[in-house]
Amino acid sequence: MNIIPFPDRTEWPALLARPVQSTQQIDAIVGPIMNQVRTGGDAALIELTQRFDKVTLTADTLAVSPVVLDAAEAQLSDELKAAIRQAYQNIRTFHEAQRQPVEKIETMPGVTCWRRSVGIDKVGLYIPGGTAPLFSTVLMLGVPAQLAGCREVVLCTPATHPAVYFAAKLVGITKVFQIGGAQAIAAMTYGTESVPKVYKLFGPGNQYVTAAKMLAAKEGTAIDMPAGPSEVAVYADDTAVPAFVAADLLSQAEHGPDSQVLLVSTSRKLVELVNLTLSTQLGKLPREAVASKALDNSKAILLDTPADAIDLLNDYAAEHLILSVADAEQVAEQIINAGSIFLGNYTPESAGDYASGTNHTLPTNGFARAYSGVSLDSFVKKITVQHITPEGLQVLGPVVEAMAEAESLDAHKRAVSLRLASLAEMNPA
Amino acid sequence: MNIIPFPDRTEWPALLARPVQSTQQIDAIVGPIMNQVRTGGDAALIELTQRFDKVTLTADTLAVSPVVLDAAEAQLSDELKAAIRQAYQNIRTFHEAQRQPVEKIETMPGVTCWRRSVGIDKVGLYIPGGTAPLFSTVLMLGVPAQLAGCREVVLCTPATHPAVYFAAKLVGITKVFQIGGAQAIAAMTYGTESVPKVYKLFGPGNQYVTAAKMLAAKEGTAIDMPAGPSEVAVYADDTAVPAFVAADLLSQAEHGPDSQVLLVSTSRKLVELVNLTLSTQLGKLPREAVASKALDNSKAILLDTPADAIDLLNDYAAEHLILSVADAEQVAEQIINAGSIFLGNYTPESAGDYASGTNHTLPTNGFARAYSGVSLDSFVKKITVQHITPEGLQVLGPVVEAMAEAESLDAHKRAVSLRLASLAEMNPA
Repeated sequence: MNIIPFPDRTEWPALLARPVQSTQQIDAIVGPIMNQVRTGGDAALIELTQRFDKVTLTADTLAVSPVVLDAAEAQLSDELKAAIRQAYQNIRTFHEAQRQPVEKIETMPGVTCWRRSVGIDKVGLYIPGGTAPLFSTVLMLGVPAQLAGCREVVLCTPATHPAVYFAAKLVGITKVFQIGGAQAIAAMTYGTESVPKVYKLFGPGNQYVTAAKMLAAKEGTAIDMPAGPSEVAVYADDTAVPAFVAADLLSQAEHGPDSQVLLVSTSRKLVELVNLTLSTQLGKLPREAVASKALDNSKAILLDTPADAIDLLNDYAAEHLILSVADAEQVAEQIINAGSIFLGNYTPESAGDYASGTNHTLPTNGFARAYSGVSLDSFVKKITVQHITPEGLQVLGPVVEAMAEAESLDAHKRAVSLRLASLAEMNPA
Repeated sequence: MNIIPFPDRTEWPALLARPVQSTQQIDAIVGPIMNQVRTGGDAALIELTQRFDKVTLTADTLAVSPVVLDAAEAQLSDELKAAIRQAYQNIRTFHEAQRQPVEKIETMPGVTCWRRSVGIDKVGLYIPGGTAPLFSTVLMLGVPAQLAGCREVVLCTPATHPAVYFAAKLVGITKVFQIGGAQAIAAMTYGTESVPKVYKLFGPGNQYVTAAKMLAAKEGTAIDMPAGPSEVAVYADDTAVPAFVAADLLSQAEHGPDSQVLLVSTSRKLVELVNLTLSTQLGKLPREAVASKALDNSKAILLDTPADAIDLLNDYAAEHLILSVADAEQVAEQIINAGSIFLGNYTPESAGDYASGTNHTLPTNGFARAYSGVSLDSFVKKITVQHITPEGLQVLGPVVEAMAEAESLDAHKRAVSLRLASLAEMNPA
């Protein structure tokens, strides 16, 4: 990777800039696909799946049959099934702890307010096809949906790998459709004869899927978060193990040629050692070509002080941030922008990608400045509820009256005054 | 209001449909304004403010001076200041309870995961001008921003009412800019010489402001939620007080001619009594013309059973839902789609609009199916953190290896294998 020694702060924005993605061309392709599904329903899905995926479906085979879903388990090795079950359990444990009990708050005597968490009634999950069957993402989205109590969970995926179906069963998903691309997003956005319309869409995908989700969002269907190429930043000092750092950088680089990989250090020695071991490890990877291309665009940035490093990392707002430094937990406390943080030499990103329990659907492209990763919160709405007693309204009412009057909202004021007058009549002082 | 007696369920979707808003025309106006501010900075803001608001500003007067902010307090009555302070305190109490302490979860021995809530570093609040100076919204957005510890809170508002400035001071906002409309949203989205660029935008506004926020969202700046006309649904039975119900409906109707007002009941008597008192109360309102127009479009729907009423309310997903029924709290438990719920005869919506403590920035237009109202969560990101000990990796590692291999992500697997091999070397069995 390219070593950038001690750049001036004025150079940081250019160094940390993500590749600009032009969406106009993609939108021009995706818009008509969305429309076709909205007006054509199942027939459009069948036609588009034939055209783009070269897969022949019928109205009866859009949905994956329960027989096929049930048969998946027998096709997997016991080792893989045990691993998936363990990951499921860890993800469940971590997300279960995110449940918020109802807490009634009496803000003034007789004025009680609380929040109820309610699962979003209908959610749609998208899992891409391609070379890597992302059954891990089925767990990452399906577990919180299950915990949230979402009544209808729809899964669209062109992937037919039994591990995807096995994971779907594990999280209680019964509606799986063998459709992919923008047409799958359109199906869940508008609903078709077979595919239910949902209120919120989740999941990764290529640029067409991403564009379809953004269009859906503009029309009022909620989405998990805007997407971008996956990325990792590693901050390492001389206590880091160069081979581990190189392996972590490569595990990001193998995702795709557009993966963003950043190494930050105050130690030139560490950076040079990482660079050496990178080339050795790269040669052993099946996805060498992909990873090599991603590394060509990657940067190792040398900085003068740890304080500079923390500032730069906060400016970058990495999706994944690995802190392979002596005082990792203290450094983590100073990080204000990141999706997920991995501490120390024995916490590789892969652990969080699959099985430690944290969610791997995280904000990329600098969105970590304002967005959180997917969590139980992503699958619930919090409805506020309040109850005021007559005594409570006698205390709070005059406050509301004064404010409504100052905002010139007379009917707002009268809704209180009328009640106070009625109470005064019932209980004359 | 129009009484719709016992409609068939097949008629519900049409009855509950919100007016469709065509955004294309608005986007065509707002897009160029956004571009002008992006390229022209302060000069563009000054030109646009002159053109649209007929207000002459200079680079020195874009920001409201500290002297003006400080002088606001002296211009308000003691009664109003006390009311604003009480509302501030109640909102603070309710939102403070939403803080989530860090809880470290050991998902497996040696595998520890947690979440840190971190305030979004830079947020922008928009408060519209117009006849009603919405200082209450300054509190509703400013209090959670203050509690979240957002470092930079920017307020743009064309309103110059001292109560707006007083509320801004109360929540600790020091950067107030006297700009409004789409140009204000553009300023906070791109940043200008004077106005800081922010990561997330909050606040209500007219259709131009809304369109500008949607464009900002498409370009990667987060927004609180998509907006639509304000709305209330009241579910009332014979225990409701018709005059109170009428007053609540009117307090929604006075917001604007496009306000959505819905009354749901199983009692024809109640509906007729409410209709009677509506006309009496309407005549006493300064905003009679506005409210009357909103009522023309409003509906009172009669249903056969409470179960039907609950289904219909869940289909509608009201921003505000008032339950003026005998068993209000039990009914509330069955509501799965609503922004905020008000229980019983002495809990008017106005209370939550101003001062009970709950937030009044809520999902309209059916968005309550997937979105929550603004809360402390809206101003923080939750960063996940994990730490794995060597012993932990020895337990978790094989799980990750099996899953990565099945997903054909070899480098992900090797990032674990390398570490496990190194541990085996250090501690040969």
